[in-house]
Amino acid sequence: MKVGYIQTSPVFGEKERNFNEVKKQSKNLKADLIVLPELFATGYTFTSKEEAVSLAEDLKSETAQFLIEMAKTTEAVLVAGFIEKARGSIYNSAMIASSEAVLGSYRKIHLYNKEKFWFSPGNKPLNVYKIKGVNIGIMICFDWIFPETARTLALLGADIIAHPANLVMPFCQKAMTIRCLENRVFAITSNRIGEEKRGDNHFKFTGRSQITSCDSEILSTAPTDENFVDIIDIDILKAKDKKLNKINDIFEDRRVEFYNAILKGGNYVNESK
Amino acid sequence: MKVGYIQTSPVFGEKERNFNEVKKQSKNLKADLIVLPELFATGYTFTSKEEAVSLAEDLKSETAQFLIEMAKTTEAVLVAGFIEKARGSIYNSAMIASSEAVLGSYRKIHLYNKEKFWFSPGNKPLNVYKIKGVNIGIMICFDWIFPETARTLALLGADIIAHPANLVMPFCQKAMTIRCLENRVFAITSNRIGEEKRGDNHFKFTGRSQITSCDSEILSTAPTDENFVDIIDIDILKAKDKKLNKINDIFEDRRVEFYNAILKGGNYVNESK
Repeated sequence: MKVGYIQTSPVFGEKERNFNEVKKQSKNLKADLIVLPELFATGYTFTSKEEAVSLAEDLKSETAQFLIEMAKTTEAVLVAGFIEKARGSIYNSAMIASSEAVLGSYRKIHLYNKEKFWFSPGNKPLNVYKIKGVNIGIMICFDWIFPETARTLALLGADIIAHPANLVMPFCQKAMTIRCLENRVFAITSNRIGEEKRGDNHFKFTGRSQITSCDSEILSTAPTDENFVDIIDIDILKAKDKKLNKINDIFEDRRVEFYNAILKGGNYVNESK
Repeated sequence: MKVGYIQTSPVFGEKERNFNEVKKQSKNLKADLIVLPELFATGYTFTSKEEAVSLAEDLKSETAQFLIEMAKTTEAVLVAGFIEKARGSIYNSAMIASSEAVLGSYRKIHLYNKEKFWFSPGNKPLNVYKIKGVNIGIMICFDWIFPETARTLALLGADIIAHPANLVMPFCQKAMTIRCLENRVFAITSNRIGEEKRGDNHFKFTGRSQITSCDSEILSTAPTDENFVDIIDIDILKAKDKKLNKINDIFEDRRVEFYNAILKGGNYVNESK
């Protein structure tokens, strides 16, 4: 299976220009799955919710059309971040598209920092898309810090996690080696580069897009400060076997009867307040 | 709060010698919490269940006495691995002891590799011990690979995870930086060194005991091949605040309504079989 990412440097608010940039970067590219960054067409740093609303789309708008077009030329399934508009709310979403249609969207359930002012938190379950026998799960950026996200996707059957991102903290790339190991899944973290200073906000994005194997290996890593494309061959069947050794199967070995606090909340009290 | 570990090289089956070795290593040591390795008094590599049974103890036997004695001289609470015998079964357990008494035991819930032939899987809930205002959670070695273990302890209120280990894989030390970050807890991984070749089994233990901060920093690391002791000062109050930044609290931001698969098992099917 040929999978990869396109690490970009979106220009804020200029969708057409960002589409063209991606088109240029993906010239002659062929693959089975390509992941683009979070909010790759719009940029990230909004000065207000209204500004984000003005750049929002449904699953039939220009980003959808662009991704279907890209799926045709690359022969790949595309996963890419966009602002989703639905029933009067907007979400930090990712769309999955084939050459024929948009297959669905994921709405980020764990919003980072000021995203909480701009977007509604995701209101749809985590989901896995079965495409040519491969189960593709989707999560977005900050979802990585909650082990429940990747775990849930893996338990739903994900072989590979498509992970559009606009990372600003230094931890995610290392964390993904653990997420992939603990779930025996592959992951493609497609990050952006560059800085955005808008209003009171200043974000510097960290690049280093990464493909991680189900054995915790980093199979591809991008630079911190350059646009970058990589497509590699992975043996996706390895992710379907959860055996760590002859005796331990990391899914069968789970002891769910001892994990109740994870759903019930435990008795943690914030004593620092 | 002064916390630390004693990294040892147990001689198989020779409890008295192993006690004396620890006593020598801990001479003049003072602390609030000291963690010893998994099975520090017995060694790890059994040739049969019967052999493990012959080294098993209850909460009043010689290891308990030794730990209470050590708690007196060091003024610390001790957490250390031992073989627990209870109602006709044996467990890969850890004991927590103060200068006055054994406070309880944890029975490893995720058994690694051939441990499944020697021990019964833990049958008691994960638990947190409140000592002088500090909540101490306990997990053992391979429990690290299941994110649910540290997560459950943190949700039960753990500020620090005492983590006796006999590590043979290379991943845990890195994983602990993620476990601590995702839960904003401290952790003390107390590992052993040396090799054991017994019967068909050959295990090489990796040392590198580690103290990890709730910000993902490695505060102490031991060599791979030498006995080692370290005690450091940590600001345990940091672990009581789950805020990652002004807007994100990693516990309040959890979206438990989307994590059902973690307890219900999802629809994962092992397609590789």
